[in-house]
Amino acid sequence: MKRTKYVFLKVMLVVMVTLILSACNNEKNQPNETETSTPKNTVHAEENEVIEAHQGLNQEPIPIQIERDGNDVYVEMTSQITDIEVEEGQMYKAWTFNGEAPGPLVVVDQGDTIHFTLKNIDPAIPHSMDFHAVHAAPDKKFADVMPDEEETFVYEAASPGVFMYHCGTSSVLAHIANGMHGTIIVRPTDGYPTDDEIDKEHVLIQNEWYKYNDLDDMTNGEPSQVVFSTKAMEEGQLNTNGVVGAIKEKPLEANVGDKVRLYVNNVGPNEISSFHVVGTIFDDVYIDGNPANRMKGLQTVILPASGGAVVEFTVKEEGMYKMVTHQFNHVEKGAAALLNVTEN
Amino acid sequence: MKRTKYVFLKVMLVVMVTLILSACNNEKNQPNETETSTPKNTVHAEENEVIEAHQGLNQEPIPIQIERDGNDVYVEMTSQITDIEVEEGQMYKAWTFNGEAPGPLVVVDQGDTIHFTLKNIDPAIPHSMDFHAVHAAPDKKFADVMPDEEETFVYEAASPGVFMYHCGTSSVLAHIANGMHGTIIVRPTDGYPTDDEIDKEHVLIQNEWYKYNDLDDMTNGEPSQVVFSTKAMEEGQLNTNGVVGAIKEKPLEANVGDKVRLYVNNVGPNEISSFHVVGTIFDDVYIDGNPANRMKGLQTVILPASGGAVVEFTVKEEGMYKMVTHQFNHVEKGAAALLNVTEN
Amino acid sequence: MKRTKYVFLKVMLVVMVTLILSACNNEKNQPNETETSTPKNTVHAEENEVIEAHQGLNQEPIPIQIERDGNDVYVEMTSQITDIEVEEGQMYKAWTFNGEAPGPLVVVDQGDTIHFTLKNIDPAIPHSMDFHAVHAAPDKKFADVMPDEEETFVYEAASPGVFMYHCGTSSVLAHIANGMHGTIIVRPTDGYPTDDEIDKEHVLIQNEWYKYNDLDDMTNGEPSQVVFSTKAMEEGQLNTNGVVGAIKEKPLEANVGDKVRLYVNNVGPNEISSFHVVGTIFDDVYIDGNPANRMKGLQTVILPASGGAVVEFTVKEEGMYKMVTHQFNHVEKGAAALLNVTEN
Repeated sequence: MKRTKYVFLKVMLVVMVTLILSACNNEKNQPNETETSTPKNTVHAEENEVIEAHQGLNQEPIPIQIERDGNDVYVEMTSQITDIEVEEGQMYKAWTFNGEAPGPLVVVDQGDTIHFTLKNIDPAIPHSMDFHAVHAAPDKKFADVMPDEEETFVYEAASPGVFMYHCGTSSVLAHIANGMHGTIIVRPTDGYPTDDEIDKEHVLIQNEWYKYNDLDDMTNGEPSQVVFSTKAMEEGQLNTNGVVGAIKEKPLEANVGDKVRLYVNNVGPNEISSFHVVGTIFDDVYIDGNPANRMKGLQTVILPASGGAVVEFTVKEEGMYKMVTHQFNHVEKGAAALLNVTEN
Repeated sequence: MKRTKYVFLKVMLVVMVTLILSACNNEKNQPNETETSTPKNTVHAEENEVIEAHQGLNQEPIPIQIERDGNDVYVEMTSQITDIEVEEGQMYKAWTFNGEAPGPLVVVDQGDTIHFTLKNIDPAIPHSMDFHAVHAAPDKKFADVMPDEEETFVYEAASPGVFMYHCGTSSVLAHIANGMHGTIIVRPTDGYPTDDEIDKEHVLIQNEWYKYNDLDDMTNGEPSQVVFSTKAMEEGQLNTNGVVGAIKEKPLEANVGDKVRLYVNNVGPNEISSFHVVGTIFDDVYIDGNPANRMKGLQTVILPASGGAVVEFTVKEEGMYKMVTHQFNHVEKGAAALLNVTEN
Repeated sequence: MKRTKYVFLKVMLVVMVTLILSACNNEKNQPNETETSTPKNTVHAEENEVIEAHQGLNQEPIPIQIERDGNDVYVEMTSQITDIEVEEGQMYKAWTFNGEAPGPLVVVDQGDTIHFTLKNIDPAIPHSMDFHAVHAAPDKKFADVMPDEEETFVYEAASPGVFMYHCGTSSVLAHIANGMHGTIIVRPTDGYPTDDEIDKEHVLIQNEWYKYNDLDDMTNGEPSQVVFSTKAMEEGQLNTNGVVGAIKEKPLEANVGDKVRLYVNNVGPNEISSFHVVGTIFDDVYIDGNPANRMKGLQTVILPASGGAVVEFTVKEEGMYKMVTHQFNHVEKGAAALLNVTEN
């Protein structure tokens, strides 16, 4: 009986200790699990967040089609799933227009009628197009296009400016934050008062990236990256500068004495921009790119989420000029582009 | 003696295991406690944060009194504790003006003298009124009114615009975030240049909600809800659309071809607004509602905390138009209102 | 043998219990450790973050030197390590210009040529000067000055306004957030349209503080303090009001009926400001201080990170007026200054 008691005691001890250790281990593991959701094998960490039909999918960028016939402009874009390098060595399986994020630049003239076709080649989810440059009943003309379908919508570009476009499908936050944003410029019929003074034109788009397809992080978190991208001004040209890395490696160009015009657009999805170019002052700024909203001598222009501006400044000396949002926590996350000013 | 040792060992084991388990349990419970402060019984979770004198208190909304005698306008409001539905099914024991949050709309004419009476029927704490529309020595004319007392203050509304009002009692953040905010419109003597073009007028107010009466969350946290409310334009009418749910269920109305004017006010307490209406462009914007501050062709207007604007736009097609702040993390939290445009 | 078993059991029990308790204790300690990194001995908590060469260093403030010779203005400033009281009783071993944070006010006239000398008396790290008021190739004229060296740079102040200056050395966020920011006013040649109406002029600068020299907190955290500082308008005068405490204890002054002009500058590094003066309305606002950017009747002016403004308002009654950013979470963190209005 002593023996039995002894064995019972030993067993009880082992059982209890096991229970206790496992309770303690639960404590230890829980935080780690929720924090990192570490992948068990070769799958990339964020792959867990990739929706099933997108896993392994990386659709080749398809150039935007823009054709003009008088005042009618025919624009054809795709919505598609394409890997984007959001930071050196960090790929993001982006939801995109045409395989770019930001999407391709669209440039039209004030008074143009846009015939817009969206081909949704994403096999899994609907997408849509909300152009800030047009008047349109959102539930009809910004309507969802189903996977593997296409739709055409027609609207006028009556108001000049630098406008955001984005996917308007719910949750809009997820669609924008996953990459479905871009810029449409509507050139004013009468131009800008300063048109004659301009030597160089460039486009700069600011956007944020969050944890991959993580709606909670997009809603409550801080951005992982804040970046600038540039786009070629020529209609329909496929952009290869679409990441901040590219801008850093391939700065924009200007010559000493040039008056440079930037079409700037902050596509968010969440943050305000305090746009500033180090080493210069904006001679002229047109808020949202409308010639009527002219401001003078700004050091910094504030851009709401989705807001645009035409900013113009003169570069008087040879050197490398940084373009930033002066919210410097965002510069730490990548929000700096370069302008290389050389003697011609 | 063996027996004694054995019993001693058993007791020691039990004691130690109990201690250990309780230590481990402490670990387990602590995070939960701080995270949710779970109620033990029937009391609603947030009731713990309700100050004692407010517990169980739900004062019936008392309509604002506005009477005009020439250029003298007599405004009587209450400060009171009233349950507000901040999200479907989620009540908030708000600190309010007149039982509404945002409080009732006040509309006066430029040049009016406002005779303002605040009846503080909150039994527990002082409140006050800070109208952004007037000049006043804050320590005297925005002074605290004690519980169950009333005070009258007189000031002129000399400057036209869309202004915030709020309780100015310390901590101002707590008083605003708990619901004590609203809008006062001062109609310009000479009107707006675009008055003749306007077909419909509506009021939209943006505000955030935080964890119930939690000053730390209000100071350092992300908002729990960001919402739009509307108010009837008629003086003194008790508003029944005061929550985002109501706006979603009862959209604002306009007809095809209407030029719509919105008086917009972002009452915070903390966040900037990037106000935008999906599917249209603002023809005219008057910053802070002053006719002198006119901007043209904006896609989005930035509103600082407390900032206002008159925005005007044309709806050209039948459909449902969403009004948002384009900081889309806030749309996820409720910041979307609807405008229903129909053929008359 | 029983004895042996008994002893073995006792030892095993003690060992296991020790292991378990230590596992549990690990659980208990880990969060505390990461949260506070509590100092073990007399060293102040943040001292751990002070770079070695700065430990114990507290360089006496050295007044800025400003001398004028026609249109040539000779400005000499230091970069130095000096303790700053960021909140009552809380010292911050700031990276500063001239031992102040914000740094000393610089006032020049439009058209002046600035001959700027930076003496870097910080023994450890390079610093530099980026004036938003000038055109300059950043890599040359905003270049780093090495420890114990000095450099002189020459540029023109061609554009009028209220501009930020800051250290532009990488990481710029760390240099600004640690205290290297300030304001330069360029007085317009033709003045402001409202110059004749102004009775008093003051300067207000808003900045944030973060955890000591903690780049992660600066990048992703909420500010620990948001404060206003004032600076004497007289050229070259050493400011003693450089902390919010001082402003609270020594309010700015005006008389009843005065039209007050404030030169306001939000030097960030990260946050937007919604600048408002309780109890008044801005008659006139010049965005970034440029006479061309005039707005009327604003309750609140939005300042991007680095943005400035000239704001003018009339104080009609005796009393104490609070100047705030209307983002009231920042008021909770200190962002309130006082204007004392008295009968002369």
